Amino acid sequence: MVMQFLSDNAAAVHPQVWKAMQAVDRADAPYDNDAPSRALDAAFSTLFGRECAALWVASGTAANCLALASMVPPHGAVLCHREAHIEMDEGGAPGFFLHGAKLMLVEGESAKVTPATLARASAGIRDDVHQVQPHAVSITQASEYGCVYRPDEVAAIAAFAKARGLGLHMDGARFANAVAFLGCAPGEVVAGVDALSFGFIKNGAMSAEAIVLFDPEQAALLRYRRKRAGHLQSKGRFLAAQILAMLEGDLWLANARASNAAAAEIAGAAGDRLLHPVEANEVFLACTPAERAALRAQGFGFYDWGEDAARLVTAWDAAPDHVAALARALAAL
Amino acid sequence: MVMQFLSDNAAAVHPQVWKAMQAVDRADAPYDNDAPSRALDAAFSTLFGRECAALWVASGTAANCLALASMVPPHGAVLCHREAHIEMDEGGAPGFFLHGAKLMLVEGESAKVTPATLARASAGIRDDVHQVQPHAVSITQASEYGCVYRPDEVAAIAAFAKARGLGLHMDGARFANAVAFLGCAPGEVVAGVDALSFGFIKNGAMSAEAIVLFDPEQAALLRYRRKRAGHLQSKGRFLAAQILAMLEGDLWLANARASNAAAAEIAGAAGDRLLHPVEANEVFLACTPAERAALRAQGFGFYDWGEDAARLVTAWDAAPDHVAALARALAAL
Amino acid sequence: MVMQFLSDNAAAVHPQVWKAMQAVDRADAPYDNDAPSRALDAAFSTLFGRECAALWVASGTAANCLALASMVPPHGAVLCHREAHIEMDEGGAPGFFLHGAKLMLVEGESAKVTPATLARASAGIRDDVHQVQPHAVSITQASEYGCVYRPDEVAAIAAFAKARGLGLHMDGARFANAVAFLGCAPGEVVAGVDALSFGFIKNGAMSAEAIVLFDPEQAALLRYRRKRAGHLQSKGRFLAAQILAMLEGDLWLANARASNAAAAEIAGAAGDRLLHPVEANEVFLACTPAERAALRAQGFGFYDWGEDAARLVTAWDAAPDHVAALARALAAL
Amino acid sequence: MVMQFLSDNAAAVHPQVWKAMQAVDRADAPYDNDAPSRALDAAFSTLFGRECAALWVASGTAANCLALASMVPPHGAVLCHREAHIEMDEGGAPGFFLHGAKLMLVEGESAKVTPATLARASAGIRDDVHQVQPHAVSITQASEYGCVYRPDEVAAIAAFAKARGLGLHMDGARFANAVAFLGCAPGEVVAGVDALSFGFIKNGAMSAEAIVLFDPEQAALLRYRRKRAGHLQSKGRFLAAQILAMLEGDLWLANARASNAAAAEIAGAAGDRLLHPVEANEVFLACTPAERAALRAQGFGFYDWGEDAARLVTAWDAAPDHVAALARALAAL
Repeated sequence: MVMQFLSDNAAAVHPQVWKAMQAVDRADAPYDNDAPSRALDAAFSTLFGRECAALWVASGTAANCLALASMVPPHGAVLCHREAHIEMDEGGAPGFFLHGAKLMLVEGESAKVTPATLARASAGIRDDVHQVQPHAVSITQASEYGCVYRPDEVAAIAAFAKARGLGLHMDGARFANAVAFLGCAPGEVVAGVDALSFGFIKNGAMSAEAIVLFDPEQAALLRYRRKRAGHLQSKGRFLAAQILAMLEGDLWLANARASNAAAAEIAGAAGDRLLHPVEANEVFLACTPAERAALRAQGFGFYDWGEDAARLVTAWDAAPDHVAALARALAAL
Repeated sequence: MVMQFLSDNAAAVHPQVWKAMQAVDRADAPYDNDAPSRALDAAFSTLFGRECAALWVASGTAANCLALASMVPPHGAVLCHREAHIEMDEGGAPGFFLHGAKLMLVEGESAKVTPATLARASAGIRDDVHQVQPHAVSITQASEYGCVYRPDEVAAIAAFAKARGLGLHMDGARFANAVAFLGCAPGEVVAGVDALSFGFIKNGAMSAEAIVLFDPEQAALLRYRRKRAGHLQSKGRFLAAQILAMLEGDLWLANARASNAAAAEIAGAAGDRLLHPVEANEVFLACTPAERAALRAQGFGFYDWGEDAARLVTAWDAAPDHVAALARALAAL
Repeated sequence: MVMQFLSDNAAAVHPQVWKAMQAVDRADAPYDNDAPSRALDAAFSTLFGRECAALWVASGTAANCLALASMVPPHGAVLCHREAHIEMDEGGAPGFFLHGAKLMLVEGESAKVTPATLARASAGIRDDVHQVQPHAVSITQASEYGCVYRPDEVAAIAAFAKARGLGLHMDGARFANAVAFLGCAPGEVVAGVDALSFGFIKNGAMSAEAIVLFDPEQAALLRYRRKRAGHLQSKGRFLAAQILAMLEGDLWLANARASNAAAAEIAGAAGDRLLHPVEANEVFLACTPAERAALRAQGFGFYDWGEDAARLVTAWDAAPDHVAALARALAAL
Repeated sequence: MVMQFLSDNAAAVHPQVWKAMQAVDRADAPYDNDAPSRALDAAFSTLFGRECAALWVASGTAANCLALASMVPPHGAVLCHREAHIEMDEGGAPGFFLHGAKLMLVEGESAKVTPATLARASAGIRDDVHQVQPHAVSITQASEYGCVYRPDEVAAIAAFAKARGLGLHMDGARFANAVAFLGCAPGEVVAGVDALSFGFIKNGAMSAEAIVLFDPEQAALLRYRRKRAGHLQSKGRFLAAQILAMLEGDLWLANARASNAAAAEIAGAAGDRLLHPVEANEVFLACTPAERAALRAQGFGFYDWGEDAARLVTAWDAAPDHVAALARALAAL
């Protein structure tokens, strides 16, 4: 039997989520005219302490790309980190949803961009029709290396974006882990953000992410775009119910705390093997092929990360004994 | 309390589907690398008696548009009925997924096309670069008016398509109802079809439709296109499980027979009000505004269909007493 | 030797146009930074008596599609006549330039739409995300059957568009012929129009059409879109020079009067064979296959128009003796 | 008066080109059905010593993007140098023509890629649907820094491409300069190339480039794509005539030799200021702001290239005395 640290994508669905889905298993209005779907705007407005609109979709890729579609015309570009999920792992979806708009790659430690690296990446762009012009910045919270933007870092990026007339998108596939790490109010981390992809699937839901629009006026446009992309499911109440269940009693935060704690335990054992600070639920560590083979022989599942590193991801339902076993195994390497 | 005949989209999820979903609620490979997703090709190959490949997606719109993307280049066109779902009700999704390809509208009784009406619609197209050339035919089984193509009708359309080098797509949002009506083997209705959107959501599933490719070589392309459209869900096992549960013991057929039977009962009471033969689970009938108001006053929910007609749809879980009540009410109008 | 009435597309280039092109055959700034290109805004503002911006492109298809791109988002639609050039003869270019937006087909005599036929075509569209919503109206002046919208007809369509929040585009491939027929100021025919494709190529230019934007703010967007479509030629001065030469001394009007007069002479001889009023430079007439063969045997070149009709087009350089010969031949049929 | 070394884009049109254009100024078939357009396939087949098809377009951007459209599906990518024209200077046109396909950036000296740098750029791409897969390589001959791929370098890249199933495109905006430098037969430089954008505009034509397809089967597809992009001009004979005039008596080669010779003269005077070998008609040299100001004060026009460099471009019609003056001025810096 394998002790899985491959991906939080494969984790189980939380019992509260199952319960909420079953509770809406009766006829209601189709698409997003059902009661739970209509409750999302208010739920997120309460959570963030300001008026916003929210739409469900069934994948982070769809959430990111639809959110960006509210900011970037087909002839524009998005500034994002060289290792951003939208660049590396979405099969070219931004090019599809944005009708050929471009991703402009930005440097930065631990897959985090800064105003300085954003400025460097866009410095050479002449303001003429021969060159594609950026229209938005996209950042990932927590980053692809499990590192968290502090509120003041987000604010500085937002100021950069605003000064140049760019929209700001936050890919929050692991937004919950970031907030759990920061211990602040969710609204503090999104000041200046125009649209947030709020991830639930890795964190205990089955098939629902939220696009949160801090300019609620954009919701009408995105509803058309969502339908046009085949993402308006006919029994939308089952997606809305998942999200409401995750928000209820801050289950999203409790689950994120659990996976963060598991990652912290592993990080503690990994010592100076760590390649990035462990601030969310991902651990990247230096690890030779022989060491990886040894870990696998002990029953641990995880991804290689290049030649001499490994990626270990913890989920909300990480088994305490598996985590402890992994920590022991790392310490013993 | 409303007795719903608005849409089969709003129907409940079948208990067997719930059970199957819960059975896969444990860690498995993410995306479509899990065991249930990998079982789909074999399941559909058995069902249709020939080798095929199958992919899940979460909406009929996505299924239709991805299927068409295997046949139609951006500069091409799809011949479809003037009232086809892809033309009327998918928010322009074909234009999006096909990168601007065109729908060419065809006439036909009860939303069914024929080789003759297809020929008429394409007759005027000169074979030159100034005019968009058709690359595929798309038909809906059962049609948007609940009418069923007989195997020989499909075969004639397939022959038309083949003779002109066109692909043939079948939008089978209500394929189950069509097969239930015909009482034939499923393979008989898809002879000559290149890709089928096999609908399960209206028929007892929650969020899974299948794209069935009778040329399995196309599957690799569509897997890329599905990811690029944000339709590759990370916990795909929950979609695959729904489909497998629907196929298991021919649940899809049993559910379709139930909704067809309910529609037939209503149709029997509607007499010569019927605007189209009732061959699946939709009933279109002449009905004045006053009559519709009277029906609604008795607690029946349904859509107006223009000025002087109503559309009534039955679902797999139609309550026998609601159906009987509606039949009585119609007879008494 | 053939006497050509096939198409004004094949006509010669006017000597004044050649002269103007040669006059700019010296180094100047590349793309559209040269002096003639920078003179276009002022030239058209003078012509139309109101501030406008103008961009050159090398085809009517590019002019139409770029103009529409200033009004119609990818998820929107254009209302146009069923036989509009953008629908029938542009190889699907609107689908390409508008990223999958749709053309909604409208009826109307002689390929002219009216507020009534526009209303009918859009009447059935529900205001929801399942249906594509119109964002613009496109009309052709003169129409595809050589018929001219009167200023009050344009104004009525503009009022329709404005009331529904739609943009108004005029495909003026034969705008010159229309103005020549009306005998009014050019500005009178474009009241309420947002963007005009002003055709010069059929009327004596070689390779330059103008997109005239009555909201000059849109010019910046279209400059990006033009470049992105590969339509920003590097020696743009040769296109601008053609246009300025056509405007100089109202050469555009003189040429259009010449082709109109030729068409009128032919129409006079055609009597009640005429299928549409002859108001520009196109003549559509009833004509059996045998009669067409007879005309061709006498040396006349023209297109068949379906089974029992012919299309004859006159150009600015129509040879008087050819026109007279054709008139005689028609009278003698 | 300014002595221009800004861009070969601004150069004059060769007298032989003017003559050829005027020679076709009589009615002929519209679009590309005229005699000169129909002569292109044979002319290029002769030139390259193998069967090919050729289409005219009016810009290098359109030539590049249409050529790539024959190789790269919307979900694919093109490997090209980080400073390739398609990446830096085409306003996002590849994203438009390829419907969102991606450019993958490759390193290399003097804007030339090698099998090694191509391999490095594509090494990390997993063969799965989450990552965009390359479908073509595009190289620029001569490169963006005026450096020329030798036949064996092209052959090595072609072998790389073939081994991975990738198409090979050559952006030959300055193909003539490269062939003039190499002194070999044109066919030797395109062995293994699938499609060539053969530039004429910078080299003495007015508005015509050729897309040369070494797989003539692709021509039908590109004819549809060209029309759909608004690039099928109605008086195409004027473009074809330009190209035929440039090929006639190897005018293209004579013009390229002239501009190469001018660049060589300047390079000779620049000494170790040169940043790249001068192999075509572009000179990049180290040059402080003060030195650039001094040159401009003497009447030379050119572009800055970053902080401490300048780009000087010679055209086919470079005035010998301007070139000599520039050489003297550089030597005297």
